[in-house]
Amino acid sequence: MTSIVLFTDFGPSGPYIGQMESVLRLTAPNVPVIHLLSNAPTADPRLSSYLLAALRHSFPVNSIFLAVVDPGVGGDRRAVVLYADGQTFVGPDNGLLNTVAVQVQDAQWSEIIWKPEQCSMSFHGRDLFAPIAAKLAIDAADNLLQPFDRNDLSIWPVDLAEVIYFDFYGNAMTGLRYREGLAGKILNINGFALKQADTFGAVAEQQAFWYKNSSGLIEIAVNKGRSEQQLALKLGMQLSFQLFNGG
Amino acid sequence: MTSIVLFTDFGPSGPYIGQMESVLRLTAPNVPVIHLLSNAPTADPRLSSYLLAALRHSFPVNSIFLAVVDPGVGGDRRAVVLYADGQTFVGPDNGLLNTVAVQVQDAQWSEIIWKPEQCSMSFHGRDLFAPIAAKLAIDAADNLLQPFDRNDLSIWPVDLAEVIYFDFYGNAMTGLRYREGLAGKILNINGFALKQADTFGAVAEQQAFWYKNSSGLIEIAVNKGRSEQQLALKLGMQLSFQLFNGG
Amino acid sequence: MTSIVLFTDFGPSGPYIGQMESVLRLTAPNVPVIHLLSNAPTADPRLSSYLLAALRHSFPVNSIFLAVVDPGVGGDRRAVVLYADGQTFVGPDNGLLNTVAVQVQDAQWSEIIWKPEQCSMSFHGRDLFAPIAAKLAIDAADNLLQPFDRNDLSIWPVDLAEVIYFDFYGNAMTGLRYREGLAGKILNINGFALKQADTFGAVAEQQAFWYKNSSGLIEIAVNKGRSEQQLALKLGMQLSFQLFNGG
Repeated sequence: MTSIVLFTDFGPSGPYIGQMESVLRLTAPNVPVIHLLSNAPTADPRLSSYLLAALRHSFPVNSIFLAVVDPGVGGDRRAVVLYADGQTFVGPDNGLLNTVAVQVQDAQWSEIIWKPEQCSMSFHGRDLFAPIAAKLAIDAADNLLQPFDRNDLSIWPVDLAEVIYFDFYGNAMTGLRYREGLAGKILNINGFALKQADTFGAVAEQQAFWYKNSSGLIEIAVNKGRSEQQLALKLGMQLSFQLFNGG
Repeated sequence: MTSIVLFTDFGPSGPYIGQMESVLRLTAPNVPVIHLLSNAPTADPRLSSYLLAALRHSFPVNSIFLAVVDPGVGGDRRAVVLYADGQTFVGPDNGLLNTVAVQVQDAQWSEIIWKPEQCSMSFHGRDLFAPIAAKLAIDAADNLLQPFDRNDLSIWPVDLAEVIYFDFYGNAMTGLRYREGLAGKILNINGFALKQADTFGAVAEQQAFWYKNSSGLIEIAVNKGRSEQQLALKLGMQLSFQLFNGG
Repeated sequence: MTSIVLFTDFGPSGPYIGQMESVLRLTAPNVPVIHLLSNAPTADPRLSSYLLAALRHSFPVNSIFLAVVDPGVGGDRRAVVLYADGQTFVGPDNGLLNTVAVQVQDAQWSEIIWKPEQCSMSFHGRDLFAPIAAKLAIDAADNLLQPFDRNDLSIWPVDLAEVIYFDFYGNAMTGLRYREGLAGKILNINGFALKQADTFGAVAEQQAFWYKNSSGLIEIAVNKGRSEQQLALKLGMQLSFQLFNGG
């Protein structure tokens, strides 16, 4: 069975998540709604896109992601649906879905051509994207979408060597997927040089390190500390790996 | 089908929301629970009431709102149910439900005369209001309520020209519903004079403006900024509109 | 019917809660998931254990608690299941479940001997504990657990005279369960001497007091204020009661 997965920058306290969920339940009352993330980088679809592309792997192929980081709402950006290796993503066409598209094998884009009877200028998550996600979940969106060819993503970076997210512990996720070639390398960021570790317990308390996180991304952390504060990290800060350790 | 909608000042992290939800599921296991808001103005039922009255419009008529902003819990304020144009509201009789009552066509009040076997002094949300909301959801509350006439709401303002809520972006919602006569008017607050705009993208970055928000309220925002900080706004701060622009 | 109750230090915004919930729904799609707490004392299973032991009383006996405060993840601490007076707790064997065990009549421990095909080093909540909780919820965990005798809990304090949690209002919960003998006693903490009260409304505004909270714990609060700030309280701060009032 499908689920609808919420990925937004709306914040955890409300009221926008609940308003979207009301719309979802009206059309698709039997489809589970999973609250994945409500603090995507605020109004930053570029950074958010790398987070979404990593987190989607925890969800089964038939999942429908309702992804809304939409600072241009009410402007002329398109409203789109992306089919990507069996998962479906509904959201604004502002870059938020691009990283998923360039990381998967099979990406197919559609524009949402359906227009709701009433649509606010500032909350398309509730008025446009949620109805479409719900209709997709019950297979009732056939005439509401129009496929289009996207041929302008060749320059969109598949990985991003920047800080893209701080979790509740102050750990810094980056937009860089772990690969074997990085094993043992030194990570440089903000003047600090960090070694790799497998677990928090493998380093001394208050020591910073990097590791492959549970979503496959390079992540920077401090054992019993907050890397965000201790290393003075910011969203969008760039990192690099030394080609040769030491020397 | 009905849903139970949670509107509280309990905070998003717990534990009070989950404790209420446990009670709801015991009595009404098949009724969806939607988390609308957990950061209503703390211990301020007056400001909260204008937010609740605006947000209810995103929910269908058969919704049951479990609304708890209850600084006087354990004291002598009544516990009530309000039927309002087909929606039902359960909560303390401290003003929290008054704005809904004065904005709707048909408002009918009942006092909760049911007493739970065990009732804490400090958490009637869990021990009194949640059981009633669940019983209402399954049509099992007939003998637990006693209608009463309320005739003292003539002085309760139908709209409130004050800041009532800051959302996750730092936008300031007011208790004033948009009406056509306000179009193009200048909004004055805290020494600032703000113009109307339709979308965030319609103004320069860091510029403040006001607009009709997605719940029908006058809202103050800054494009790519936080109006709360930039205009030094506070909950309860008053605003006004100039009758004539310029001059 | 059973429910799965989430108790973690993952934070309310994501993404870890939603990733766990995805796993739960794959195996146990019809079992309700209740979000009890996402801000347990960070990386502090000892303090968290007293909170969990108090909050469990709001849930029916067949509930399954997925409890994850797990700073040693990836190390050699065991993964366990605790049956305790009809409720079930799944989590790390780092003290988090000990207080439940010493407070109940019947505590039975099992080690999780099942190994997932893929298991990250840093997120056993998703990869190990959630699958076990879901299998327990559908009675499919028989061969995945191995009972063991625990005989080292005699020195684990049944109650804890320390601050264990601050709620959204800034109220300070302690690890001390209320008992009749404490009625009317003076509570000493951080140089302050606090009287008991039944309700917030029973004391003057800005006045600090202690009371039996809705989960049965001693709690410190300030009427219309934040005890955390006003009394400069910290997690782990010790408190005591005067044997004799005054004199």
